[in-house]
Amino acid sequence: MPEAPVITVPVPLGDRAYDIFVGRGLLAGAGPRIAALGARAAIIITDENVGPLYADALAEALQRQGLRATTFAVTPGEATKSYASLEKVCDAVLAAKIERGDLVVALGGGVVGDLAGFAAAVVRRGVRFVQVPTTLLAQVDSSVGGKTGINSRYGKNLVGAFHQPSLVLADTALLDTLPIREMRAGYAEVVKYGLIDDARFFDWCEANWRGVFSGGLERDEAVAQSCRAKAAVVVRDEREDGDRALLNLGHTFGHALERITRYDSARLVHGEGVAIGLCLAFRFSVSLGLCPAADAERVEAHLAATGLPTRLSHVPGGCGSVDDLLDAMAQDKKVKGGALTFILARGIGQSFIAPGIAVEKVRSFLASETGEA
Amino acid sequence: MPEAPVITVPVPLGDRAYDIFVGRGLLAGAGPRIAALGARAAIIITDENVGPLYADALAEALQRQGLRATTFAVTPGEATKSYASLEKVCDAVLAAKIERGDLVVALGGGVVGDLAGFAAAVVRRGVRFVQVPTTLLAQVDSSVGGKTGINSRYGKNLVGAFHQPSLVLADTALLDTLPIREMRAGYAEVVKYGLIDDARFFDWCEANWRGVFSGGLERDEAVAQSCRAKAAVVVRDEREDGDRALLNLGHTFGHALERITRYDSARLVHGEGVAIGLCLAFRFSVSLGLCPAADAERVEAHLAATGLPTRLSHVPGGCGSVDDLLDAMAQDKKVKGGALTFILARGIGQSFIAPGIAVEKVRSFLASETGEA
Ligand SMILES: NC(=O)c1ccc[n+]([C@@H]2O[C@H](COP(=O)([O-])OP(=O)(O)OC[C@H]3O[C@@H](n4cnc5c(N)ncnc54)[C@H](O)[C@@H]3O)[C@@H](O)[C@H]2O)c1
Ligand SMILES: NC(=O)c1ccc[n+]([C@@H]2O[C@H](COP(=O)([O-])OP(=O)(O)OC[C@H]3O[C@@H](n4cnc5c(N)ncnc54)[C@H](O)[C@@H]3O)[C@@H](O)[C@H]2O)c1
Repeated sequence: MPEAPVITVPVPLGDRAYDIFVGRGLLAGAGPRIAALGARAAIIITDENVGPLYADALAEALQRQGLRATTFAVTPGEATKSYASLEKVCDAVLAAKIERGDLVVALGGGVVGDLAGFAAAVVRRGVRFVQVPTTLLAQVDSSVGGKTGINSRYGKNLVGAFHQPSLVLADTALLDTLPIREMRAGYAEVVKYGLIDDARFFDWCEANWRGVFSGGLERDEAVAQSCRAKAAVVVRDEREDGDRALLNLGHTFGHALERITRYDSARLVHGEGVAIGLCLAFRFSVSLGLCPAADAERVEAHLAATGLPTRLSHVPGGCGSVDDLLDAMAQDKKVKGGALTFILARGIGQSFIAPGIAVEKVRSFLASETGEA
Repeated sequence: MPEAPVITVPVPLGDRAYDIFVGRGLLAGAGPRIAALGARAAIIITDENVGPLYADALAEALQRQGLRATTFAVTPGEATKSYASLEKVCDAVLAAKIERGDLVVALGGGVVGDLAGFAAAVVRRGVRFVQVPTTLLAQVDSSVGGKTGINSRYGKNLVGAFHQPSLVLADTALLDTLPIREMRAGYAEVVKYGLIDDARFFDWCEANWRGVFSGGLERDEAVAQSCRAKAAVVVRDEREDGDRALLNLGHTFGHALERITRYDSARLVHGEGVAIGLCLAFRFSVSLGLCPAADAERVEAHLAATGLPTRLSHVPGGCGSVDDLLDAMAQDKKVKGGALTFILARGIGQSFIAPGIAVEKVRSFLASETGEA
């Protein structure tokens, strides 16, 4: 079966530079691309949903190139980003006799990518790794940029490492088996890139989202364009000291909602929180007189068209009071002298970092959203 | 109390450069030196032996400079370099609200330094850390070079990170409370630096070791010279891809002995294994016709004079058969085509990396040492 067109997105990070390949059917041709890295052995880390679907094909693709390849599957779900799983994955990597020149291959969504990437960062103080992301969120966001890690009882992603992959293979055909809710959740992150600084890409999303969901060439293009956008930010600010923060558009509100729903994916998955958060960030910008109301309405209309939630009232089981929301936000952000830093927007594609937003302004905005006002 | 003379050893690692300060009584003046790094808060990680002796003095020195300082103590001993302790220490760091600009301060021996340094490497994907080593081994070896980590069921130090400290403060007065066996164990590493490539320093050790043990200025000089030697190697090869391996002189045999005695410090501590290992490396070099016998005899005589073990028969409870030793060595080293890589010597101060040493040569040497021949 010949490969469909493959799009290459370079991530020019000096001696940590790597390529992202995007295309339908890439998995079948993964062997030569991974073998080109020059390893003798690889361990595929996956989860129990993804493994049965794709791990054998990947292992065989590697074995055909003469690599020793084994597979280790973790329990699906956010709870797997734990110290206990880290130990299990590191043990599996060591048991497979992976040396510093060998490879850890993450085959799964963001949970597998973050966990396996962190294990790769710390086993033998660093072995190389390859990302084969299998969710839309992982293809457009978590597999790019080198942030890896696990959760702590003090919060999400608080323990980890910056460890860039040696290669990212985003086979868009793998998304055909993804539950629609996960597909939508990843799509919220796609839209986010348009909203940050690329109004033309947002226009494109409005016109082409059906093709992204159904698996046409539009899907490849959306993944590639998102990777380009994220790579550009990462290259400017690899270790998140500055404007990598723009990637958090919609995430301050989104994280608060995830915290309030206790990371219960039955109620809210990350991308759904982001979708609501994007709408809130735009409406908040409108309420501060920064952004035309029409832009906020366009954002909401587009996300709603794809089936994503856009309002606090859409959170199943509710999202608590204004005070609950403010408390949850304060855990994510430092409140400095009664003020918070937000990512706001002057319009679609015109986001900016806004420090010094008074808590009282957030409170009255949220009150108008919840109807507490 | 005025500070005694302070020796500064720079570690010129580009944007990860830092200074090692060596001197008697440094702890009392630690406040300004640590505060100069510009943090607002610090957490001191120590163990339950060291904490009661020195943690309060250090915390107060920091508090006097306006830093928020808390202390967290772990159980002493090698078993503490575990995933479970890593989680506890990371939790303590997060509970103390240490941000990326703040500090983790490791106050203890190599166990505390390796564990706290690893926690600093991974909390928030990297916070800064300071080493305040309290054993001779930690002052001359483990606190310098940025190797941090924990043990795995598959072997020692197999999980960790390269994470350079921002500062090392080696107060040689702290060694006054160190058990003599630990003092001797660290001293084996001091001697190692002379044996690697500095025959004059070995001469100096023979002449001055009593002052090192009793705490005169010779101790400061021995620590500083060891740090200079280690820093020079680390600067040449930060991530241990090449000649950092010279630092493993004596360690191939030493690690095998530690493994055979199951890391039971009642039987053998690391430095004692290194002392025997150094003697074996020299006698093995003699047996291969590489090194004058007189040099091996000098090495043994000096280590024995300080009270260190020098022969396999000195291991309490024995060290097993030649096959046990070879098995234990094969776990540490890759055996490639029936051959091992050793660090050997052409004489005192003339060590080199020797790949391709046939297992059979090792076997017959060990047989002569154990009397199995
Ligand atoms: N490292 C980063 O920069 C970064 C960025 C954003 C998010 N994240 C992290 O990503 C994680 C979320 O990732 P996610 O949304 O991919 O979740 P996930 O990894 O939990 O995957 C979602 C679900 O889909 C299943 N699945 C995955 N691929 C499938 C496929 N092709 N077919 C059928 N089922 C499939 C999984 O088993 C899982 O049940 C979070 O932990 C978040 O913190 C990290
Ligand atoms: N990172 C590296 O580059 C590197 C290099 C060499 C060794 N190491 C590691 O270092 C560890 C060994 O370090 P160590 O020998 O310092 O052992 P250690 O940390 O276990 O300390 C030895 C004992 O001395 C006690 N102690 C420490 N300071 C004291 C003091 N001033 N007064 C009284 N008691 C004191 C400790 O509580 C402990 O019981 C090993 O885990 C080894 O793997 C690391």
